[in-house]
Amino acid sequence: MIGVAVIGCGRIGRLHAQVLARHARASLVAVFDAVAAVAAQIAGELHAKAAASIEEVLADRSVHAVVIASPTATHVPLIGAAVKAGKAVFCEKPIDLNLEPAVACWREIASLQPRVMLGFNRRFDASFSALRERLQAGAIGKLELAIITSRDPAPPGAEYLKGSGGLFRDMSIHDFDMARWLAGEIVEVHALGANLVDPLFGELNDIDTSAITLRAASGALLQINNSRRCAYGYDQRIEVFGSKGMLQAHNQRATSVEVWDAQHTAAQDVLVDFFMQRYREAYAAEIDSFISALERQVPMSPDFGDGLAAQRLALAAEESRRSGRAIRMAPVTTP
Amino acid sequence: MIGVAVIGCGRIGRLHAQVLARHARASLVAVFDAVAAVAAQIAGELHAKAAASIEEVLADRSVHAVVIASPTATHVPLIGAAVKAGKAVFCEKPIDLNLEPAVACWREIASLQPRVMLGFNRRFDASFSALRERLQAGAIGKLELAIITSRDPAPPGAEYLKGSGGLFRDMSIHDFDMARWLAGEIVEVHALGANLVDPLFGELNDIDTSAITLRAASGALLQINNSRRCAYGYDQRIEVFGSKGMLQAHNQRATSVEVWDAQHTAAQDVLVDFFMQRYREAYAAEIDSFISALERQVPMSPDFGDGLAAQRLALAAEESRRSGRAIRMAPVTTP
Amino acid sequence: MIGVAVIGCGRIGRLHAQVLARHARASLVAVFDAVAAVAAQIAGELHAKAAASIEEVLADRSVHAVVIASPTATHVPLIGAAVKAGKAVFCEKPIDLNLEPAVACWREIASLQPRVMLGFNRRFDASFSALRERLQAGAIGKLELAIITSRDPAPPGAEYLKGSGGLFRDMSIHDFDMARWLAGEIVEVHALGANLVDPLFGELNDIDTSAITLRAASGALLQINNSRRCAYGYDQRIEVFGSKGMLQAHNQRATSVEVWDAQHTAAQDVLVDFFMQRYREAYAAEIDSFISALERQVPMSPDFGDGLAAQRLALAAEESRRSGRAIRMAPVTTP
Amino acid sequence: MIGVAVIGCGRIGRLHAQVLARHARASLVAVFDAVAAVAAQIAGELHAKAAASIEEVLADRSVHAVVIASPTATHVPLIGAAVKAGKAVFCEKPIDLNLEPAVACWREIASLQPRVMLGFNRRFDASFSALRERLQAGAIGKLELAIITSRDPAPPGAEYLKGSGGLFRDMSIHDFDMARWLAGEIVEVHALGANLVDPLFGELNDIDTSAITLRAASGALLQINNSRRCAYGYDQRIEVFGSKGMLQAHNQRATSVEVWDAQHTAAQDVLVDFFMQRYREAYAAEIDSFISALERQVPMSPDFGDGLAAQRLALAAEESRRSGRAIRMAPVTTP
Repeated sequence: MIGVAVIGCGRIGRLHAQVLARHARASLVAVFDAVAAVAAQIAGELHAKAAASIEEVLADRSVHAVVIASPTATHVPLIGAAVKAGKAVFCEKPIDLNLEPAVACWREIASLQPRVMLGFNRRFDASFSALRERLQAGAIGKLELAIITSRDPAPPGAEYLKGSGGLFRDMSIHDFDMARWLAGEIVEVHALGANLVDPLFGELNDIDTSAITLRAASGALLQINNSRRCAYGYDQRIEVFGSKGMLQAHNQRATSVEVWDAQHTAAQDVLVDFFMQRYREAYAAEIDSFISALERQVPMSPDFGDGLAAQRLALAAEESRRSGRAIRMAPVTTP
Repeated sequence: MIGVAVIGCGRIGRLHAQVLARHARASLVAVFDAVAAVAAQIAGELHAKAAASIEEVLADRSVHAVVIASPTATHVPLIGAAVKAGKAVFCEKPIDLNLEPAVACWREIASLQPRVMLGFNRRFDASFSALRERLQAGAIGKLELAIITSRDPAPPGAEYLKGSGGLFRDMSIHDFDMARWLAGEIVEVHALGANLVDPLFGELNDIDTSAITLRAASGALLQINNSRRCAYGYDQRIEVFGSKGMLQAHNQRATSVEVWDAQHTAAQDVLVDFFMQRYREAYAAEIDSFISALERQVPMSPDFGDGLAAQRLALAAEESRRSGRAIRMAPVTTP
Repeated sequence: MIGVAVIGCGRIGRLHAQVLARHARASLVAVFDAVAAVAAQIAGELHAKAAASIEEVLADRSVHAVVIASPTATHVPLIGAAVKAGKAVFCEKPIDLNLEPAVACWREIASLQPRVMLGFNRRFDASFSALRERLQAGAIGKLELAIITSRDPAPPGAEYLKGSGGLFRDMSIHDFDMARWLAGEIVEVHALGANLVDPLFGELNDIDTSAITLRAASGALLQINNSRRCAYGYDQRIEVFGSKGMLQAHNQRATSVEVWDAQHTAAQDVLVDFFMQRYREAYAAEIDSFISALERQVPMSPDFGDGLAAQRLALAAEESRRSGRAIRMAPVTTP
Repeated sequence: MIGVAVIGCGRIGRLHAQVLARHARASLVAVFDAVAAVAAQIAGELHAKAAASIEEVLADRSVHAVVIASPTATHVPLIGAAVKAGKAVFCEKPIDLNLEPAVACWREIASLQPRVMLGFNRRFDASFSALRERLQAGAIGKLELAIITSRDPAPPGAEYLKGSGGLFRDMSIHDFDMARWLAGEIVEVHALGANLVDPLFGELNDIDTSAITLRAASGALLQINNSRRCAYGYDQRIEVFGSKGMLQAHNQRATSVEVWDAQHTAAQDVLVDFFMQRYREAYAAEIDSFISALERQVPMSPDFGDGLAAQRLALAAEESRRSGRAIRMAPVTTP
């Protein structure tokens, strides 16, 4: 059994804790939250210990790994501390809103053979991973074009937005990871943004709608489209096109019921809302992958370098949006 | 060029006349209608002759074939007269509302090597015929189960219903022909009927909803469902299931547009209404098949025997509905 | 917490035990199996007690309810004993292969205010129950026609078949329950059967393919089609048609991926196999409904009477198949 | 009746001639082709005159309108001559491969109140025009994002490619017109191109794959993706997304048949190939729109200005591809 502690008991930390508590080959040893009462409640429900401090968590020898689900600003120090304490780390994205602290973090830990996995949950969605497996197995030949659609049902609140880092770093970062996962290294980025959903975004110098184009080192072209508001639910689709055909991964609905009446035919329900439901099984598969990698002592994926790479693309997109130019990505060395 | 005359210029006769007027290898020589002014108008539009009488049509040596689209009661005498006059015949279904006159008609003409084709238009629908071709090519192995769905958008008027012969003879007869076309000879018929749509049907001792089961000589089981009213349009589907899989032929819509909004997703338009639109291309293909059979001097299909067989099944369904028993079909000799 | 014991640790008993072990408001107290080692293993995995005998289970005051998942022949005696011991009962279908023992069982326990729920799992499928809710909410007006498709991926083994009671009692019984659940009381049954899949069925005087027609007291007509073999997986669909439209509940696949290549377009995966996967969530919802009914002391559904009614329809179908007649169902009194 | 002559009897000129010969309110007066024998054959088939020269066509007073379907290089002189001869003009796209001759052409004819319609056939596709009507009627609120997919089944031959003007001017030009038709004036263009299908494109300094992003004056963002090769047929789709939802217009297949077998489920046929089939009805509707505009003396749409605007976008895309910069479109004056 792999002993795991969860740091940060917000919505997503709680979900990870539940998954760990039920996991056959892991045990949820402890949970920690800045608000002690929150940690105590989760600990009670899941028969785990409520740690009084991060230090207590890291000093606990029955804790082999930590899941970092605390606010973004704490990720870098926690990764550093956990790695130094000899723990494996699963960290929610992003490593940091800015690239420099993330790169600095890596420099600090690189020599320690760190075991760090990044929380790009979509890689573990059954449909997206089936699509990728078939792509890699050659089902459509060589990848030439991809369309990644990612539209949130509704914008987050103003407070969240102010600290979000903007659409590319907060939302598109998942799509950048999908793009790399599907097409490999990205060499060119162009992005257009628009403020169409809510004037608030404009006031924050942010955008709510975007159209991004990427070119992969392989030659493949990718298009990402994002919106912060989607009337019919959480729209998450991938289409990959190659020399021999196309694969599409479609959305999910709660039931398979179709309505046929005097107004329309074959009408299905609106889409599953929101990421906690849409990716419920992906979150569990993600943690399972983390535990399995620990057990088998194989490399984790996505790793720290994947987290950095997605951030670099988000920053390049922002630069492209502001400058009106396509951005060529410098070849990535380590990580 | 095959010279053709159309007898009866109602909705369907007019359509056949238009198809013939445009046909590359046929010429529309004449049209006749009991109402001379109607014939004159069609004739004018299509550059054909308006015949003053049936006799004139049958005496015309440039008329090689006649299309009979006049009221059902006239079919038997017209088939007889036309065959005796040496004409090939395309006759709208049914041959007659009753079996005896139809059988008597055949006895009268059988020795004349009659060339008679019956108007079961659905056999010429592109999707249904593609389904049948694949079935016969073995795509799903041996046929085991079939579901034929046929629901009209709205009931016809009371006057039409009174002379219609009832649901089985008027509406299900097309489905009986589909069943034979897909599965071959039918050996057992069971039918339930209900009056759910409009009390008028009950008053006429008719039904508006039915569930029919057939067993083919091959062993395959078939289910037909009919309704005289369908809120979302003209519902026409076939599903065939066999040892290796299933084929489905679906409905048609005017466009491929889907609507996704806060109420539903992937909602398509209601179905094409009604048979004149749904089977527009099938009607043209049917006439083309008639002309081609004449040119190549090959047997016509569906033929007089197919018309009789579908009627026999309609009568057996009626008998089953009234008696509550399944009806075993007597082996058919000629035709 | 409701204390529950599971009797019979085959595939389905094991699943129920797992669901109970994870249930928030129930506790799995004990498991029993005729093979003690099997019970011991499950008990170990799920932190429950392995009971040495049925008597031990029924004597245990911490056991409020039993789940009966043992062989069919044991259902009637176990229901009787459990009810007399004051336990609530969840029993897998069927109550008994024959009607008489089931009716006798009821007579024996009726005066004890028995709490018995029958394991018709499909009622708890998310799509089927959403379809029914909308039907009952009037989404398509009055129900007029229904098509229930139920095709197993592959026939069971010969040993199972010999004791199965035949297709209607073993397989269609679920569809009979669906029919009653959707349309209410059934007044007329007609069934055709065929042996098309494997000669073994014929040797056992059984069938592997069937087409069943039902008439409900409401006037609605229902068609059921069954096959013991389905090349593309476990085909489970419901279509209900009414005065205002149609609802369809479709099949499930493991992913939403579509393949478009030089051979075909929009091709999806084969269906989820088999009931353990297809109805995985339905089994959990079913047990949850059982626990909830116990907590709230409300009637259970489906109940003993529903089990008897589905059996009566299966027997009528068999009688219809053998006699060639439609069978009128006698009005049901108690239960 | 509007008298029309067709100039150029290649594949598309022949189609227009056939449509005109069947048109109820137009008459095909004459056809002309540089190869007299070709014109003579078409004229014979369609009961029209084979003109011996362009001059003869333009001098013919029974010719009210000309359809220009000759090689691109002849478009500008023919438009000029026809307009000066007082004829209305339907001209296949593009006006010219280069912008200057097209602008010069307009300057030459502008004062003559020219009646010129451009052959952007996709505007007349039933599904695309239904999508646009609903968009304009507010079905999805304000347009925010659009995805236009256009992939040809196979590359044209080397000879054609050499004179094609490159992917943007030859193929994407239709998509640029769609973009303007859906979103109005375009203010910014970015394009990436790639040579992935055949080295021949690279040798010609052309591309075979592209990802284009547009920003409309309205704020909407649009993404176009193109490929010169598509294994599953001619892929033509539009998706528009707005504040209240999404509309999608899907591809067309020859039949509605789905195959379900041990390999896949719900597999449909490959798509209709190629534009002559896919847009068969659109071509007829386009000519009908031309005839109707002449009859009613209303403005034609798409007009000469639409042709220029699409060309300007194609040139901007080429400039963007070569420079790596997004191109801001100068505000268009006349036309």
